[in-house]
Amino acid sequence: MKVDLNSDLGESFGRYKLGLDEEVMKYITSANVACGWHAGDPLVMRKTVKLAKENNVQVGAHPGYPDLMGFGRRFMTLTREEARNYILYQIGALYAFTKAEGLILQHVKPHGALYNALVKDEELARGVLEGIADFDKRLIFVGLSTSKPLEMAEDMGLKVAHEVFADRAYNPDGTLVSRRLKGAVIHDKELIAERVISMVKDGGVKAINGEWVELKADTICVHGDNPKALEITAYIRKRLEEEGVKIVPIKEIVR
Amino acid sequence: MKVDLNSDLGESFGRYKLGLDEEVMKYITSANVACGWHAGDPLVMRKTVKLAKENNVQVGAHPGYPDLMGFGRRFMTLTREEARNYILYQIGALYAFTKAEGLILQHVKPHGALYNALVKDEELARGVLEGIADFDKRLIFVGLSTSKPLEMAEDMGLKVAHEVFADRAYNPDGTLVSRRLKGAVIHDKELIAERVISMVKDGGVKAINGEWVELKADTICVHGDNPKALEITAYIRKRLEEEGVKIVPIKEIVR
Amino acid sequence: MKVDLNSDLGESFGRYKLGLDEEVMKYITSANVACGWHAGDPLVMRKTVKLAKENNVQVGAHPGYPDLMGFGRRFMTLTREEARNYILYQIGALYAFTKAEGLILQHVKPHGALYNALVKDEELARGVLEGIADFDKRLIFVGLSTSKPLEMAEDMGLKVAHEVFADRAYNPDGTLVSRRLKGAVIHDKELIAERVISMVKDGGVKAINGEWVELKADTICVHGDNPKALEITAYIRKRLEEEGVKIVPIKEIVR
Amino acid sequence: MKVDLNSDLGESFGRYKLGLDEEVMKYITSANVACGWHAGDPLVMRKTVKLAKENNVQVGAHPGYPDLMGFGRRFMTLTREEARNYILYQIGALYAFTKAEGLILQHVKPHGALYNALVKDEELARGVLEGIADFDKRLIFVGLSTSKPLEMAEDMGLKVAHEVFADRAYNPDGTLVSRRLKGAVIHDKELIAERVISMVKDGGVKAINGEWVELKADTICVHGDNPKALEITAYIRKRLEEEGVKIVPIKEIVR
Repeated sequence: MKVDLNSDLGESFGRYKLGLDEEVMKYITSANVACGWHAGDPLVMRKTVKLAKENNVQVGAHPGYPDLMGFGRRFMTLTREEARNYILYQIGALYAFTKAEGLILQHVKPHGALYNALVKDEELARGVLEGIADFDKRLIFVGLSTSKPLEMAEDMGLKVAHEVFADRAYNPDGTLVSRRLKGAVIHDKELIAERVISMVKDGGVKAINGEWVELKADTICVHGDNPKALEITAYIRKRLEEEGVKIVPIKEIVR
Repeated sequence: MKVDLNSDLGESFGRYKLGLDEEVMKYITSANVACGWHAGDPLVMRKTVKLAKENNVQVGAHPGYPDLMGFGRRFMTLTREEARNYILYQIGALYAFTKAEGLILQHVKPHGALYNALVKDEELARGVLEGIADFDKRLIFVGLSTSKPLEMAEDMGLKVAHEVFADRAYNPDGTLVSRRLKGAVIHDKELIAERVISMVKDGGVKAINGEWVELKADTICVHGDNPKALEITAYIRKRLEEEGVKIVPIKEIVR
Repeated sequence: MKVDLNSDLGESFGRYKLGLDEEVMKYITSANVACGWHAGDPLVMRKTVKLAKENNVQVGAHPGYPDLMGFGRRFMTLTREEARNYILYQIGALYAFTKAEGLILQHVKPHGALYNALVKDEELARGVLEGIADFDKRLIFVGLSTSKPLEMAEDMGLKVAHEVFADRAYNPDGTLVSRRLKGAVIHDKELIAERVISMVKDGGVKAINGEWVELKADTICVHGDNPKALEITAYIRKRLEEEGVKIVPIKEIVR
Repeated sequence: MKVDLNSDLGESFGRYKLGLDEEVMKYITSANVACGWHAGDPLVMRKTVKLAKENNVQVGAHPGYPDLMGFGRRFMTLTREEARNYILYQIGALYAFTKAEGLILQHVKPHGALYNALVKDEELARGVLEGIADFDKRLIFVGLSTSKPLEMAEDMGLKVAHEVFADRAYNPDGTLVSRRLKGAVIHDKELIAERVISMVKDGGVKAINGEWVELKADTICVHGDNPKALEITAYIRKRLEEEGVKIVPIKEIVR
């Protein structure tokens, strides 16, 4: 039994610092690196890719909306062609840093509002997937577990990884409970660990209404933006390993 | 006897259109494509790379300062590390579009104020050249004919192309006469053609003070932003061919 | 009988030129000047305000989404607080130029996708109106004729101008037919003039399905981005004057 | 004997937080608020102006280069017209927030590389000062103590405040020792306090080479971006008050 731990990194910008990247790198197997549109800049990208290399962590592109002021968390209407080429641009930009550091780009995980918009908008999803396929069909697309875009990606010949969220409540249909609703984010370390183990070993978890949601867990999204998040991440890793789950990068899970 | 004709293209942005790219593509052998920092956006980059492909024109990256408002024509102090990673980012972004269209990225030519700043600032030049080498040592660096950065690039194992300007007056030291000075830009079609032929066949041209400047002409910068510029470009090409000069892409000149 | 003619101006940016501002100024009474977020920059704003002054045209702010790449034509989710302060920022920026040129800022008309989003989203509308009221309650809010935000603005003590569109088809509910649908934009000069006269004199126009839509026409949106648009604008003005309608700025209509 | 304490605030952006604004507000009398170009955004500007109001602190505009990625700390060539209108834009933007909160804008202090560039470039200085005068001649221009732009400002009819830096070493000509040189920044609390007292009471301070530099101290720049800086700021204030120096806003010093 194997699972990947991924985290969003490289989100600093210019003089602005965000995230405990040096710390969280020790616990994860895949890093989603911001590409300069919603966060990150070339110096940060270089530094983050180097850091991943030193920690033997796989690197993926984390493209987002062109919205630094909103950190890519605000929905924007994009046409399929815009989505396709915005994704392509950002993948290429990050690829340059992995190439410079002698690494292979492993995956692509859209960021924030774009990640969520994909699930509901097939045209947008198609644009994003075309952007990935345009660059390299060997890139792994990371999307919301059991969601439609993963199926579309497979139909296009892309490899996919089903992603689950360690600290988020689920609706019965497998979507995440909106952050605006009560109970959307889970803070209890023990509960988080139990849910993660359930998702990995039992193929599902209890939804916010108590129903069972079937999920596939190729990779688990964890955080490292503050000491508490870091502690939870370390604990998740420890508990999974105690349960005999191997923590390996996505490319060793998805083939 | 061979020479390349290059032009700066893909400079439109969003709803803003600039340049007669479709027209000028017919006369040139190498296109310098803006990478979204001083001009260009992902849709424009895609379209421009496609257009180059259709016209059998080689594609190069045309990275600039992060200054859309100033069109990359204003000097900015950058550290070597900033220059290195800013260039790397932009090359990667454009590379994605050449990859998507099945083309090989041929060269890198810095834009505007950055192009000029390189000639005088060795640290900056080193940063830019490191950014190119980080990505791929087979990329050809296009710089001001006989300038120091070309020598530095060769020492680093990069291939280089010496660039001359069809419509610009030269100082006796081989630098361009500043646009702010009288006589900096030459408008007479016939004179332009004669100067270009002199640069290609005689290895030099008369400077603004009448002295002879030795130059090497691997590639000639031509324009296509208005009908007059286009006419001059077509005329330069015709006259060079009449003189028995073959117009071929940089990669067939620089080996 | 009086009506204002307004047009979106100052949409150039850096080296990018858009619109025949010098020409269209001759026919209009109110200019909506872009504030640097979706279009425009400080040099363009200064020039446009000066041009308005020379032509005795009233100036209003034309704030938009922070989306230069999309020209403010793409919907973005904004909170009420974001909308309020984004509007306030842009009004202030433009105000500086009117102050420098000795003019009084007359009105505020949101741009593009923001203009349309207001009509459907009360929270967003409230944010935008609060931004206007925060700056100066004497500013006139220009919105889609008979739409809800105009009513909300009046309840807040703002003055309002009902805007109609010369060349756009209407739905029976008074909203504009989406540009993506056939027949959304009207190109026939004569038809446009007749519809405008109907809106001003008869207080309504035929909707796309043939039904009568009641509208209030304080100000008519006209264009000047190309010679054809300019010709239509001149013709509208001529025809209105022949009908005895006086063309005066919004402030002489709304009191 | 009176002096103002000023600090650069409102430098957060979007999700990025910078500075202990809430804390430093307690010790200062004038706040220089970033205007969204090198730092700050409309939500941050609103919050910062409110905070200043609550703390009875005067507000000034802190305009900078259009360079968020470089935090306005990189030199850029601007023409006089660009400088004039860039400053005007940013003053207007901030003015909107002071107007919304019922405050009077007190001063303008250029930021970072622009602040320093002014001292050496008369054309640039003229542009900046024209931008201020265009908006309101009652605004106080804050510049490097005894520098040329202050003289120019007075000749133009602007009020001026001579600024000194609490923690920076001076060259014998009154300019600041470059941050890149050893000894440029002073860290010892006691030494800082003594130097500040010397500048305020004795009209000068020892330069880095031991020579005496005559300075005028209308306002002292202090910091609050980390707990140590805050402690120094509190200590400076305490020591000045013990020496009988009154800490009052610029407008009570400059008349």
